[in-house]
Amino acid sequence: MNHTIVLNKRPVGKPQLTDFSIVTEETPTINTGEILLKTSYVSVDPYLRGRMSDSKSYIAPFELQKPVSSGIIAEVVESNHSKFSKGDFVSGLLQWKEYQKSTGEGLIKIDAKKAPQSAYLGILGMTGLTAYLGLSEIGNPQKGETVVVSGAAGAVGSVVGQIAKIRGCRVVGVAGTDEKVEMLTRDFGFDEAINYNTTENMTEAIATACPDGVDIYFDNVGGDISDAALLNINKFARIIICGAISVYNETTLPKSISVQPFLVKNSALMQGFIVSNYAAKFPEAMQQLATWLAEGKLTYVETVVEGFTQIPQAFIDLFDGKNKGKMVVKI
Amino acid sequence: MNHTIVLNKRPVGKPQLTDFSIVTEETPTINTGEILLKTSYVSVDPYLRGRMSDSKSYIAPFELQKPVSSGIIAEVVESNHSKFSKGDFVSGLLQWKEYQKSTGEGLIKIDAKKAPQSAYLGILGMTGLTAYLGLSEIGNPQKGETVVVSGAAGAVGSVVGQIAKIRGCRVVGVAGTDEKVEMLTRDFGFDEAINYNTTENMTEAIATACPDGVDIYFDNVGGDISDAALLNINKFARIIICGAISVYNETTLPKSISVQPFLVKNSALMQGFIVSNYAAKFPEAMQQLATWLAEGKLTYVETVVEGFTQIPQAFIDLFDGKNKGKMVVKI
Repeated sequence: MNHTIVLNKRPVGKPQLTDFSIVTEETPTINTGEILLKTSYVSVDPYLRGRMSDSKSYIAPFELQKPVSSGIIAEVVESNHSKFSKGDFVSGLLQWKEYQKSTGEGLIKIDAKKAPQSAYLGILGMTGLTAYLGLSEIGNPQKGETVVVSGAAGAVGSVVGQIAKIRGCRVVGVAGTDEKVEMLTRDFGFDEAINYNTTENMTEAIATACPDGVDIYFDNVGGDISDAALLNINKFARIIICGAISVYNETTLPKSISVQPFLVKNSALMQGFIVSNYAAKFPEAMQQLATWLAEGKLTYVETVVEGFTQIPQAFIDLFDGKNKGKMVVKI
Repeated sequence: MNHTIVLNKRPVGKPQLTDFSIVTEETPTINTGEILLKTSYVSVDPYLRGRMSDSKSYIAPFELQKPVSSGIIAEVVESNHSKFSKGDFVSGLLQWKEYQKSTGEGLIKIDAKKAPQSAYLGILGMTGLTAYLGLSEIGNPQKGETVVVSGAAGAVGSVVGQIAKIRGCRVVGVAGTDEKVEMLTRDFGFDEAINYNTTENMTEAIATACPDGVDIYFDNVGGDISDAALLNINKFARIIICGAISVYNETTLPKSISVQPFLVKNSALMQGFIVSNYAAKFPEAMQQLATWLAEGKLTYVETVVEGFTQIPQAFIDLFDGKNKGKMVVKI
């Protein structure tokens, strides 16, 4: 038998376990040109929260009572497809199922000997691409500039900080526990890190950590932390809006300080970043990330949860910051 | 005798007449390499409010008890300078004085026969350049796109709308009186115009006026109108933050809806625009504006107030929207 996780109802505020159902179904049989996939790793990501709501966004909402999908690594366990063989591992946007069939469309083969499978969901996958392309394409970091990263201990943030260091920037991270803050400076080479949960005045804390002001703010969180960063930006600052996890669960339109006067004063730019818009640059970016990883210039942490049924809880835990680095579920 | 207007105290909230003083002083005498200027037209602009506060911005604050300065047209009434002759008219950032001397630095000669003097403060001056370069450089309007302009009946907004029409866009303006709204569609060729003072739900009104959504929002006002525009943006929208007159007089940090989630969802860009950053493009822009003006493709309105002592009141009146188009003071 096979299991699949469907969206049972649309979350209101923070997602709950009851928003998901586990459904039992037949394991599919494959036809010519198809492969049967066995899921090995599932990526859970904050952006999925957006797809669970029924609102216009850059990607269609999930349908109720239909499987949720996300980045998945799977093993080809049967193949009637000329380009895939039994034993291949693939990465792609797949459904939260133990087994599923596919025509292979949109899947890429990964080399599970070169790097751990889960790395292809993280630093060599969408996470790494998001960090690399968001920082490069919108941020355009220059040597000597100051980069502030929020959600810095998360999957994307921890990579952004390391790339900014490689680019010769001063890097300040914002995270939510002392343990994460310590990890940022110790393991990821951030120059300074700030625990927003124990810091009374974030605006002053950022000002102190960034004596030359903020040239680039890589925003994974939105909300008060973003306001504090904005109050410290320099002329021609670039603000990459990569996520807004702090407000994804709000049921009313969240309010912040008006950004407009700060953007005018500083001739600053704020741009929403969606990695899929930069698909043409994936090969180049992936190559660079793999090189840095091999050279030991990039490192990563993962939070690995085990068990297919744990996927919804792992997703929910993202909103409590229970992950360090990339959160994946091993099946 | 000569008169000058100094900043008497820094405005708190909306500027008051008592924030300014008129001081009597000697008419200056000029040395070699200097010219004596007699002010003929003074530009009053919302951005000057920022310089009256003592806060970090893209341009230094005015000093207390020192003359205020803005865009001015003046006549050369005496010259000890090889490049300027008596009877020349010049445009530049000059002080609120009836007479002042200058080395000529930063001044450009204008042809007062080709266009009215005041046009060089407006459509052929900073106002026109701001409209043209803000829309072109950040907005990059494409044929068939929808452009929303706030402060549409103001000096910059009315030009932005006309240029967007020349570029083949659908143009919707937002202004604060029925008279202005009528002017937008009748005189400036806007497709639709909305009176924000008589419209209960601006978000719906913009949605109705923009059935294909908003591709470019040229923001002169900030505040609630900007929020309403943001709620209607399309994927890859560009938001030009040119001004935020609605919040310039706020004494606390104004709040708005959080823009970040909307920018992410739509891969949208929001950028602060300061015309002086684009000085290299002034000649090209000026040439284009002059051509369109000569061809009758661009038109403009002015609100002309008379008398040197009326400068502070004319400036204050901007915040009550008493101007239509460019506000200038004729001396």
